[in-house]
Amino acid sequence: MIPRYSRPEMTSIWDPETRFRIWFEIEAHAASAMAELGVIPHHAAKKIWDKGRNAKFDIARIDAIERETKHDVIAFLTHLAEIVGPEARFVHQGMTSSDVLDTCLNVQLVRAADLLIIDLDHLLAALKRRAFEHKTTPTIGRSHGIHAEPVTFGLKLAYAYAEFDRAKQRIVAARREVATCALSGAVGTFANIDPRVEVYVAEKMGLEPEPISTQVIPRDRHAMYFATLAVVASSIERLATEIRHLQRTEVLEAEEFFSAGQKGSSAMPHKRNPVLSENLTGLARMVRAYSIPAMENVALWHERDISHSSVERMIGPDATVTLDFALARLTGVIDKLVVYPENMQKNLDKLGGLHNSQRVLLALTQAGASREDAYALVQRNAMKTWEQGKDFLAELKADKDVTAKLKPAELEAMFDLGYHFKQVDTIFKRVFGKA
Amino acid sequence: MIPRYSRPEMTSIWDPETRFRIWFEIEAHAASAMAELGVIPHHAAKKIWDKGRNAKFDIARIDAIERETKHDVIAFLTHLAEIVGPEARFVHQGMTSSDVLDTCLNVQLVRAADLLIIDLDHLLAALKRRAFEHKTTPTIGRSHGIHAEPVTFGLKLAYAYAEFDRAKQRIVAARREVATCALSGAVGTFANIDPRVEVYVAEKMGLEPEPISTQVIPRDRHAMYFATLAVVASSIERLATEIRHLQRTEVLEAEEFFSAGQKGSSAMPHKRNPVLSENLTGLARMVRAYSIPAMENVALWHERDISHSSVERMIGPDATVTLDFALARLTGVIDKLVVYPENMQKNLDKLGGLHNSQRVLLALTQAGASREDAYALVQRNAMKTWEQGKDFLAELKADKDVTAKLKPAELEAMFDLGYHFKQVDTIFKRVFGKA
Amino acid sequence: MIPRYSRPEMTSIWDPETRFRIWFEIEAHAASAMAELGVIPHHAAKKIWDKGRNAKFDIARIDAIERETKHDVIAFLTHLAEIVGPEARFVHQGMTSSDVLDTCLNVQLVRAADLLIIDLDHLLAALKRRAFEHKTTPTIGRSHGIHAEPVTFGLKLAYAYAEFDRAKQRIVAARREVATCALSGAVGTFANIDPRVEVYVAEKMGLEPEPISTQVIPRDRHAMYFATLAVVASSIERLATEIRHLQRTEVLEAEEFFSAGQKGSSAMPHKRNPVLSENLTGLARMVRAYSIPAMENVALWHERDISHSSVERMIGPDATVTLDFALARLTGVIDKLVVYPENMQKNLDKLGGLHNSQRVLLALTQAGASREDAYALVQRNAMKTWEQGKDFLAELKADKDVTAKLKPAELEAMFDLGYHFKQVDTIFKRVFGKA
Amino acid sequence: MIPRYSRPEMTSIWDPETRFRIWFEIEAHAASAMAELGVIPHHAAKKIWDKGRNAKFDIARIDAIERETKHDVIAFLTHLAEIVGPEARFVHQGMTSSDVLDTCLNVQLVRAADLLIIDLDHLLAALKRRAFEHKTTPTIGRSHGIHAEPVTFGLKLAYAYAEFDRAKQRIVAARREVATCALSGAVGTFANIDPRVEVYVAEKMGLEPEPISTQVIPRDRHAMYFATLAVVASSIERLATEIRHLQRTEVLEAEEFFSAGQKGSSAMPHKRNPVLSENLTGLARMVRAYSIPAMENVALWHERDISHSSVERMIGPDATVTLDFALARLTGVIDKLVVYPENMQKNLDKLGGLHNSQRVLLALTQAGASREDAYALVQRNAMKTWEQGKDFLAELKADKDVTAKLKPAELEAMFDLGYHFKQVDTIFKRVFGKA
Repeated sequence: MIPRYSRPEMTSIWDPETRFRIWFEIEAHAASAMAELGVIPHHAAKKIWDKGRNAKFDIARIDAIERETKHDVIAFLTHLAEIVGPEARFVHQGMTSSDVLDTCLNVQLVRAADLLIIDLDHLLAALKRRAFEHKTTPTIGRSHGIHAEPVTFGLKLAYAYAEFDRAKQRIVAARREVATCALSGAVGTFANIDPRVEVYVAEKMGLEPEPISTQVIPRDRHAMYFATLAVVASSIERLATEIRHLQRTEVLEAEEFFSAGQKGSSAMPHKRNPVLSENLTGLARMVRAYSIPAMENVALWHERDISHSSVERMIGPDATVTLDFALARLTGVIDKLVVYPENMQKNLDKLGGLHNSQRVLLALTQAGASREDAYALVQRNAMKTWEQGKDFLAELKADKDVTAKLKPAELEAMFDLGYHFKQVDTIFKRVFGKA
Repeated sequence: MIPRYSRPEMTSIWDPETRFRIWFEIEAHAASAMAELGVIPHHAAKKIWDKGRNAKFDIARIDAIERETKHDVIAFLTHLAEIVGPEARFVHQGMTSSDVLDTCLNVQLVRAADLLIIDLDHLLAALKRRAFEHKTTPTIGRSHGIHAEPVTFGLKLAYAYAEFDRAKQRIVAARREVATCALSGAVGTFANIDPRVEVYVAEKMGLEPEPISTQVIPRDRHAMYFATLAVVASSIERLATEIRHLQRTEVLEAEEFFSAGQKGSSAMPHKRNPVLSENLTGLARMVRAYSIPAMENVALWHERDISHSSVERMIGPDATVTLDFALARLTGVIDKLVVYPENMQKNLDKLGGLHNSQRVLLALTQAGASREDAYALVQRNAMKTWEQGKDFLAELKADKDVTAKLKPAELEAMFDLGYHFKQVDTIFKRVFGKA
Repeated sequence: MIPRYSRPEMTSIWDPETRFRIWFEIEAHAASAMAELGVIPHHAAKKIWDKGRNAKFDIARIDAIERETKHDVIAFLTHLAEIVGPEARFVHQGMTSSDVLDTCLNVQLVRAADLLIIDLDHLLAALKRRAFEHKTTPTIGRSHGIHAEPVTFGLKLAYAYAEFDRAKQRIVAARREVATCALSGAVGTFANIDPRVEVYVAEKMGLEPEPISTQVIPRDRHAMYFATLAVVASSIERLATEIRHLQRTEVLEAEEFFSAGQKGSSAMPHKRNPVLSENLTGLARMVRAYSIPAMENVALWHERDISHSSVERMIGPDATVTLDFALARLTGVIDKLVVYPENMQKNLDKLGGLHNSQRVLLALTQAGASREDAYALVQRNAMKTWEQGKDFLAELKADKDVTAKLKPAELEAMFDLGYHFKQVDTIFKRVFGKA
Repeated sequence: MIPRYSRPEMTSIWDPETRFRIWFEIEAHAASAMAELGVIPHHAAKKIWDKGRNAKFDIARIDAIERETKHDVIAFLTHLAEIVGPEARFVHQGMTSSDVLDTCLNVQLVRAADLLIIDLDHLLAALKRRAFEHKTTPTIGRSHGIHAEPVTFGLKLAYAYAEFDRAKQRIVAARREVATCALSGAVGTFANIDPRVEVYVAEKMGLEPEPISTQVIPRDRHAMYFATLAVVASSIERLATEIRHLQRTEVLEAEEFFSAGQKGSSAMPHKRNPVLSENLTGLARMVRAYSIPAMENVALWHERDISHSSVERMIGPDATVTLDFALARLTGVIDKLVVYPENMQKNLDKLGGLHNSQRVLLALTQAGASREDAYALVQRNAMKTWEQGKDFLAELKADKDVTAKLKPAELEAMFDLGYHFKQVDTIFKRVFGKA
């Protein structure tokens, strides 16, 4: 996570201010619950809220205490005691640091997921708008980078829409994975804290009680969360790669918006490069990599060790901030993508009609040729087009073995673009619910 | 995937025989659908089924054809034509290899997931049985490898149960991710194949139609699948690590079953090592690693490239077979785990009652001490126990600052194990639905 | 490692026969050394060699013994005793299984490295031959997929040559990392075995004595080895990606050799796809992934645990066999690559001379324009070429602000291809030692 | 990279100030070289140095320009022109941004490597000092967490010393991998810049000229660099794991230094946890993960794309700063490690002499027993010790099958600790060059 690739709303989730505020809320809600249960005096809980609700926690002071105690939660509690006064001794009763830290982390991850879901909604809206705009814009479909058969540019965006719709569902599931709260005390036995405190705080913080914790919330939940982010990042890489290909000089079917004043190269003034999409490719690599330490974090020793902590201090912000930035950047790229339908048509025409090879193949088999013979017949004419730039239809019409099965007029009728697009509406209905 | 770490049922999913059988079923069901739609003659579909239903595909022959065509599906279709006869030209009409390959892969991954779910059911049953067996067996809970407060051994197994129950839900979700079928033809436009063929085949193969495919089924689905397996493997590593710790010479609270005739070391006849759990740790590393190439597979070029294929030929079997083996091995370890309650008690007693330090701390704050003072009071007595092996209760009773707040009898009452276990039933109810 | 992506010589390194043969050699050489030191009788060492030198070890028998003992080295030693007779009690004196296993693994990894070095020599030879063949074949250099300035196709291959020359040096270093032998006995103290036995066996097996082992050879060595393979695989991916780009329909500057009889697509007979290069991309992903568990293997517990073993049983063959196959496949691709110089020229001409934009920019600054002004001047003419297909030179000559600084003849002289290639010889000398 | 896990010297390498200073030096040295070659006026080169040598670059101003141009090097050059004046048009002649960026990155990585080498020297010194201090301190060696045979604590530290000595050599090699400089201009052809400029600047910046660059310095170099850091991090994890084990309550053979005022737990005042070592474990996971995107960066498209850039902006600082911090932290842990020889002895005695089982086994074979019979004899007595806590020597002396081969006095003589340590000097000489 570096400023260049960060947006403020996501970044602020990981600010010390936010963290201490969440810590306070967990402690204060716990105090309220304990007061209700008669474990601590009602006035103490009230005092904690009164003093802390609008307190500005002094981060430098907390840091100073931590330098001595080498324990961040104790440092915070000590500072809180300075604010609350003697009633502070009723704070954190029967709780352990992990109760605060883990519940806080999950609040942060849930908030981050909420922002990511909004990001995805924006991206989906952009994809949908551009998909309908180009629903019938013909372009060549490519397999292996080689012209295959025609698709529409709208279909390309519809693929992406469907993929990011799955991404959204996955983030929703990942959010649910980490939306738990643990206030179970040392080694998770509730020996010194009533389980009802956990239920109360969970509800207040918008979480579910963790059914069984071992002082820490189990890290398989977080592994699943970060693995999900990694998969979403991989989908970003896919769409970014598509755009990078489309902007190639020889293809130039679409282009990232190039703003006035922008410079493509310090040396070559003619350059207009898909730098945003390339950047997204790199960011995707990072988000993907963070999944590995998240998974290595699962195997904590016995009831807990703290090896996960340094990892999470890094990947908590790094993964969410980077993915948020990438999703927003990708949305901008799609929103402002400059599309060149005439270049698409030009490229489509490039292979002299070869993209109809399959249709001819099928017609030959329908006309009685074996699959193998039909394949050989079509391939030998196709290769003349491929290698010598001949017109595919003309070659077919000149091939007696072909015309023995299919009349020239039948062949001509097969070179019709509409044939390829007859199911576009069907597909759009599947993806968008309407065509 | 190597024989040493493989079980036959999972391995057989990836056999060439199984693959060709699934390919045949996809082609034959597609023929049936096309016959119903009037695209090919009914007798042709019937002939395909009649000839192919019980055919034994000749793998050596298919391999020989592939060596020439360098295309596996064409090789299969050519061989199938040898079996079916002239009607074979109605096979694969309007389809592309990916329709067969991707739908087959998803059938295999779904079947693999089904086996993994059964594996998890067995593991969950073993964990539950042993958890109830040791529901009240006291043992020390450890954070950072250091004695913390008491738990029960049943709780340790209940943690694992809850984690593998989540694992099961995740595999169910991963199965759903890949349970799709695509028969959309070249570049996925259905130009040469009716979408109703896809719907028909999907239903016959137990899958859902892929809403939009690009010749290939999008690989974000598979990335999610393998990422999920990786998370489950990480949970295996956690439980395996726990057992390795418990079997350490100095701890020896539990031990892998050591069969008659087994030898622990070629050099040291006294050894009995947790080799199964160590082995599981290594296997988990492998399954985890496979998630990375699965995620790198997502960004295929344009409508498809085939870079994913070599990866999937490897990790398809490698990840599922290894995870299946690991889950079964772990189930065996849990089922036969030798548990030593007396050693647990001995270890629990080792720290001279220090595990009650928090309870004393809380009582001191309840008796009016500030959190900071109480902490210091307890810590100074605890350190005498820690460093000089003194009895913690005796030290406390001898400390006037302590006894100014708490009477000796009160202190003694705090050294009661039952205090720590009063919520075990609550937790078991949360985890197992009953206590 | 699957047969499809395996070559026999590398695979045979990992055969059980090879492994048992290496085990025997280690044991027999150790016996010779011990006989020399007087630890065991000379006739015993002789008998071991006499009986074992040409013995065919019965793998099924060894497996059967292992099923009982659950220990592979003990199983082998028991079988060896059946072959050698009573003197077998002098085998493995003071040694531990790891002495045999780890030294054997390193022998295998060294042999694998030797094959990889040969593979790289072949690849380097192919790259060099083709580089000189196309030393002066002009082609456009591309940054961001966008035309930049001209290079030669020979330079592209020279880049690859330099990279794989580094790869070779890295494999040489990786080989050195694992070329060690340990015969230090239990926990590595040489308590029961003379260090001179290790020195003797190391020399016989072509290894160096491990300076300090802990029963196992430290796994940082193997981590480095597999990490190196992963980096080499990444270089394969780079060159494969280049070829995939060059074969794109719109680019078609080079093409994988397409053999007679080969079929590109089951549906579209016109297809000729860069499937080998795509395959290499996938294989590279796999070799890269194996580095992660290799690194996780480093942190064994205390003097050793066996979690590394299952990982190495898999990645030992998987990584080396796959990389060997990939290097050989890449060599074939380069050797037989079909190059289209006329297409290169056609593409080079595509941007109407824009690739000379920098030269004009520099001339303008030399003629007194500030860098910023010169940049703006060139960019405004370049954009007309980029967006409207105008001829760049013509536009420049028609721009009065340009011609105020540079005369038309001067401008024309700047559109000379040779200008870009004047240092090709210099570069070739740096890379190949000659031009 | 977060402040909590950062040290200032390494962090400062990645400061904007440092970066711009290095950029300036590259540009200014290039100007000097060009002046010598007569490409630009001598006074211009002088002016660039005069104005820039002590200039303080205005980061906010550069950022503002970049917001318009979207190009960081152009922004810097524009700002530099504001400082230098009209002669600035002679800056960056024939160069491209990558010349500046890549050479700068390599300067930073070289400086980072230099700091890491110093870190390793400190760590090695600490390990050596403590190794000699405890050269003869007996402790039990453990395989699989199970007591094996005795070692000395000095040997444990010597293992680590040898491993980090290899780590140092690897960093030296990694430094060499990235110590290259490229000033080859657009697409690396030197069309607009004399190769002698590169040679000159390389020498001034302490680098070697990159033999062949493609505008960018090839990223296999950086992949190797970060992979090496990842391997070193894995070695940190190994030593950290050892300490975590040694500090376990049941083992307590060594302990991280616990400072006055430090608090181990907010809930349990008795806790002293190996939190630094656990932290190191987590940090190692991070540094390891960064190797994956570094390797994915290798396959840039054609002569270059910019997907590597976002990755390197993150992992450049993240990997080096984190590893620097971790090495320093580990050095502190080793330096101040509290060692408990008496606990080591106590643990060593725990298994009733079982660690001599191999010696008895060997003596039995020397006395004529077959290996299998001897193993069975020893194992049956060992298991009584293992399972019932019997004294191993007493059991052996009471076993008639044993005493038929070995007299009681012979057996007694085998229970001598010195036997295990007779080669400690040999090993120390191998590792440290002296004993």
